[in-house]
Amino acid sequence: MKKLINDPRAVVDEAVAGIAAAHKGLLVVQTDPTFIARADAPTKGKVGLVSGGGSGHEPLHGGFVGYGMLDAAVPGAVFTSPTPDPILAATKAVDGGAGVLHIVKNYTGDVLNFETAADLASAEDIEVRSVIVDDDVAVKDSLYTAGRRGVAGTVLVEKIAGAAAERGDSLDAVAAIAEKVNGQVRSMGMALTAPIVPHAGEPSFDIAEDEIEIGIGIHGEPGRVRIPLEPADAIVDRLLDPILEDLPFQSGDKVLLFVNGMGGTPLVELYIAFRRAAEVLEGKGIEVTRTLVGNYVTSLEMQGFSISVLKLDDELTELWDAPVQTAALRWGR
Amino acid sequence: MKKLINDPRAVVDEAVAGIAAAHKGLLVVQTDPTFIARADAPTKGKVGLVSGGGSGHEPLHGGFVGYGMLDAAVPGAVFTSPTPDPILAATKAVDGGAGVLHIVKNYTGDVLNFETAADLASAEDIEVRSVIVDDDVAVKDSLYTAGRRGVAGTVLVEKIAGAAAERGDSLDAVAAIAEKVNGQVRSMGMALTAPIVPHAGEPSFDIAEDEIEIGIGIHGEPGRVRIPLEPADAIVDRLLDPILEDLPFQSGDKVLLFVNGMGGTPLVELYIAFRRAAEVLEGKGIEVTRTLVGNYVTSLEMQGFSISVLKLDDELTELWDAPVQTAALRWGR
Repeated sequence: MKKLINDPRAVVDEAVAGIAAAHKGLLVVQTDPTFIARADAPTKGKVGLVSGGGSGHEPLHGGFVGYGMLDAAVPGAVFTSPTPDPILAATKAVDGGAGVLHIVKNYTGDVLNFETAADLASAEDIEVRSVIVDDDVAVKDSLYTAGRRGVAGTVLVEKIAGAAAERGDSLDAVAAIAEKVNGQVRSMGMALTAPIVPHAGEPSFDIAEDEIEIGIGIHGEPGRVRIPLEPADAIVDRLLDPILEDLPFQSGDKVLLFVNGMGGTPLVELYIAFRRAAEVLEGKGIEVTRTLVGNYVTSLEMQGFSISVLKLDDELTELWDAPVQTAALRWGR
Repeated sequence: MKKLINDPRAVVDEAVAGIAAAHKGLLVVQTDPTFIARADAPTKGKVGLVSGGGSGHEPLHGGFVGYGMLDAAVPGAVFTSPTPDPILAATKAVDGGAGVLHIVKNYTGDVLNFETAADLASAEDIEVRSVIVDDDVAVKDSLYTAGRRGVAGTVLVEKIAGAAAERGDSLDAVAAIAEKVNGQVRSMGMALTAPIVPHAGEPSFDIAEDEIEIGIGIHGEPGRVRIPLEPADAIVDRLLDPILEDLPFQSGDKVLLFVNGMGGTPLVELYIAFRRAAEVLEGKGIEVTRTLVGNYVTSLEMQGFSISVLKLDDELTELWDAPVQTAALRWGR
């Protein structure tokens, strides 16, 4: 295992300390239990947004804490759900009296632990709603999931719900917006290589030098099919077809097209994929009106990428365009 | 070779097409010859900023084209200098009557081709100044360089000079600011793995599973020493010591600390490195007042990182903080 780390067991603690040191003024990091919160949390009268999950997907979620997006992020161990304790602590820390929304990727451990934390928060008179993100069309059930997995679409849910909270929407309204985004976004990913979890010390799965995995999960969970390496354009088509059929997206739709890197894929390759995806959508009469390209929901050093397509309307577009000030996402198209 | 590409010879053209498709409104891409420019270029009365170099370092330079930073970027083939033709075309396209500054990383091909383009532009009555960035303290001469190499510090030169141009500084003043940043920034990098140039099809150098290269260049040029893998903190110290000794940085200095990923290193590891670097600086009485962490000057999928330290004063800090609107760099600390 060749990694830029000290102790495999200290990876998350040391990374979180680095996040604290790098983003003073924007973020505060609490330890025991560990969570990352906006430096100015809680905002009185604003709905608080809390997300979290296993580490190893950076910048998700800590990089999305800040004005116009999350109020707190709770990092678990690498590829491991955080326990209820830090989720509860984060929930209490960001409650400004208007309630708290939990944004939870659909993995069994995450769902269970956020649910427990929500119950505990309710017992302390904090109103909590939850939205479960399950945007991955690749497989019905998976290694750590009943139903569909939550993947890169989570960023879009966090950004748009965050903007709704920032403009003063009620807890019910912010939850409804988050559900709407989840209902209108579809994603699918692929991998060329496997990630190496630090405390495991070896690749999460075996894959040959001439093979790729279509429909991979963000923890290396099996996808739909293992095939020989193909040209980028063919791979894009393999991801985009099931995405478009699923909603289904139709001619005349306006969409946000998001090409997300899994961590180890150069940006130059993501742009090659974006180019093809945009061409295919345009060919079908689907208008790409907003875009996002980069490494936002990663799987450590895994090489690969995912495509997400979100159907937009005027309200979602306006919320997407709203100002955001976080470590990882800037304001703009 | 396992890459998300179509034709190895089409990598740059297809990526540039993707950049054009992803950032409409912000950027326009010209082909024949190829360069990327601000959609609103030229800005009348403003000094134009042009940079460029071999592709494979994305988001450098195209990701830094936009308000408050570059006016145009000229991408060469992967790890290959652009020819004078597109540099000249970009220079003409962004000249708003106040002259154009070329920001050139110190590689023999880049320096020569930018110089030729500057001469041709002068013959067409466009005033051109050049600043050569040579921030890498690792080695005196290198594979493609006489003197020191230009590496990650280039981003800081482009941001700060861009802000000076945006506030209306003259060509001489913008050039002086760029020279000042180059004079006060020092960088050094390391690699765990080698990049694979698409048209070469194999790693740029051999490195064993238990070895790392200290002082690596951004094209995989040899560094100072090849050593067994060490803990992240020890590696950070190996990079930071020569950086701090070189300027030298001193107790009481205020600095921008930039931890740059080479492409294939997970963000979680960059934050571990940042944490150590910030600790060491604080221990020496050097105050980290501005920060940048992420993959900004990459070497395709190479795993590794670099540290850059820039000595700040009030003027440089103010220019660093000035608004910027580009694909890759957001406004903020």
